[in-house]
Amino acid sequence: MRDVAIIGVGQTEVGEHWDVSLRHLALYALQAAMTDAGVNRVDSLYVGNMLSGELTGQEHLGALVADFAGLRGIEAFKIEAACGSGAAALRLGYVAVAGGLADIVVVVGVEKMTDALGPDATSALAMAADGDYEAAQGVSFVAINAMLMRRYMHDYGYPHRDFATFAINAHKNAVNNPHAMFKFPVTAERFARAKMICDPINLLDSSPICDGAAAVVLAPADAARTLSAAPVRIAASAIGTDTVAVHDRRDPMVLDGAILSSNRAYEQAGITPDDVDLFELHDAFSIMAALSLESAGFAEKGQGLRVAMEDEIGIEGRIPITTMGGLKARGHPVGATGIYQVVEVVQQLRGLAGANQVPGARWGMAQNIGGSGATVVTHILEKME
Amino acid sequence: MRDVAIIGVGQTEVGEHWDVSLRHLALYALQAAMTDAGVNRVDSLYVGNMLSGELTGQEHLGALVADFAGLRGIEAFKIEAACGSGAAALRLGYVAVAGGLADIVVVVGVEKMTDALGPDATSALAMAADGDYEAAQGVSFVAINAMLMRRYMHDYGYPHRDFATFAINAHKNAVNNPHAMFKFPVTAERFARAKMICDPINLLDSSPICDGAAAVVLAPADAARTLSAAPVRIAASAIGTDTVAVHDRRDPMVLDGAILSSNRAYEQAGITPDDVDLFELHDAFSIMAALSLESAGFAEKGQGLRVAMEDEIGIEGRIPITTMGGLKARGHPVGATGIYQVVEVVQQLRGLAGANQVPGARWGMAQNIGGSGATVVTHILEKME
Repeated sequence: MRDVAIIGVGQTEVGEHWDVSLRHLALYALQAAMTDAGVNRVDSLYVGNMLSGELTGQEHLGALVADFAGLRGIEAFKIEAACGSGAAALRLGYVAVAGGLADIVVVVGVEKMTDALGPDATSALAMAADGDYEAAQGVSFVAINAMLMRRYMHDYGYPHRDFATFAINAHKNAVNNPHAMFKFPVTAERFARAKMICDPINLLDSSPICDGAAAVVLAPADAARTLSAAPVRIAASAIGTDTVAVHDRRDPMVLDGAILSSNRAYEQAGITPDDVDLFELHDAFSIMAALSLESAGFAEKGQGLRVAMEDEIGIEGRIPITTMGGLKARGHPVGATGIYQVVEVVQQLRGLAGANQVPGARWGMAQNIGGSGATVVTHILEKME
Repeated sequence: MRDVAIIGVGQTEVGEHWDVSLRHLALYALQAAMTDAGVNRVDSLYVGNMLSGELTGQEHLGALVADFAGLRGIEAFKIEAACGSGAAALRLGYVAVAGGLADIVVVVGVEKMTDALGPDATSALAMAADGDYEAAQGVSFVAINAMLMRRYMHDYGYPHRDFATFAINAHKNAVNNPHAMFKFPVTAERFARAKMICDPINLLDSSPICDGAAAVVLAPADAARTLSAAPVRIAASAIGTDTVAVHDRRDPMVLDGAILSSNRAYEQAGITPDDVDLFELHDAFSIMAALSLESAGFAEKGQGLRVAMEDEIGIEGRIPITTMGGLKARGHPVGATGIYQVVEVVQQLRGLAGANQVPGARWGMAQNIGGSGATVVTHILEKME
């Protein structure tokens, strides 16, 4: 097994791109990443995407994007794992390079949620849940998260206002990210006045429906030094899964899939949570941020929100999260999100995060979650000296 | 890179399973394959599927099937490449085992096309074509194939009745396959009277809309001998791609993706078409069977149909195809088809194909096509002595 490095990254601005098609979004990110890597050919293409069929009437994105990007003929796939599709695609690109079956691979995460052909995005996103036992009861994806949030508040005694800390932190960081959808700060007062979406989840507890694409180029680490001025090593790539339906879980307040995924990643990288300098977690809803901090080992059970309230999640804190805005403020084009997270970790490890730079960052972790915790993909990246 | 073997296979009967859900279909095939392999745990799960989102309102099949099959926690993915999804999933399972990143892997192809929630299957299948430039013009997938068939007849001077040979051969073989959807023979007369679907494609030129699942278990070849009484080596696993839209092709009568895919596979396996004892090709429509024979090197350009008419494709012929009924008569549950093909090649190489046994079969090839030739996945299997 070979060490694998990221030698190029690219991303589009996240937003409502009414005038840009899905294939163009993918192209822009892919071209940016290949330009950054300085390569003009790759062995294979992995496209992470969840909703192209449902929302744009287009499947078969592997061959489609390959051809549109001038890479006709190469091996190409679409990978789907709900909102974890992006990082799942990266995991498979990693497997190919680590195992020696490919040398240069490009992984693109892309989602086009505006301009939907048929159903609205909320209906489409319910396909991440269990169709027969959750969605068939009329439970939307935000409703599932609302139940988790209510239970968390009940079990641990937090008032809703405490969750403001996640949105405040994410928006503060997004101000300095030119690719973020919401480049403005929010306050606790604004959080308190935010429109209720699905009690207790309000607008500022929620990530937005949006479009975007991000890409990374992979190469064997030993070749990466000559290919890139600032390669970043993938020290771990791991997936853990759990039941899709929340009611089947051992404990709805514990993301067992995230515990499995995180622990597998720490073991691969040979580090512990104490070594992690920043953590791009999956804050699709603020409750997910709290649960992720706990499952990944940065807080005890029920203390994820406490850790955030004590300001440990800021750029200068013990465990900086959502350093470029996270799903909340950079935006959450679902199948692209896992790659955006990794692109941002690379920016941090390259020392190119500008005003949001985590000082001396060496180890960065990105965790992308599909569904309400059923597929959890963790990547740990290390700065190459 | 390690040699990889198939140590277990499983399949459900193909048909209209109105009383069986998608997750149950996947489960039955997976359990049959794991029982055949004699394993009760695997490292990862690859699910090949195209239409679960569009037709059953369910994405996230990786985690869903893993949990339902008692494999909660393992790494799991859904892979999509239109009608080539099944074999594309196998390709990725192969990459993981060949590269040493997994030891025991199960690959399931599954499709549930009856009981569709929203659109009919024909609309859903159009997502395999180019949404902006083909489907948006109202061109269905069968219409694209009808244009190809018309052009083939025009360019090479075949009357439509000549295509009967593919349906006759496929149905003859399906009679002896208990898992086939259509276990009855058809005649040239019946072909001549068959209902027109999309001129010149008639009902017997077309594979059916149906449900089904098939699975294979992979292991490193060196371990396979102790795990299985009849392991089969994967001598090649290769993908070639082409434009999704037919009008963008160099020549609409040539499947460049299939040429790439086949040649990559022959090179990996170290064999030529002359060595292949049977070829499970992608006869979604009879025109695809003709083009596949040509692209894979079994016939000159324009001679694929001639080769079939001269009875070279029967069990005792020079290049037996669709030996268990093919897409036409075994059935074409799209995301499952690529795995059915491989399961049938394994049956042949194990000498367990009964009345349809190809005598002395050592090398078997399976080729699964996504769209009208945009993703082509080829596997060459070798009997292990």
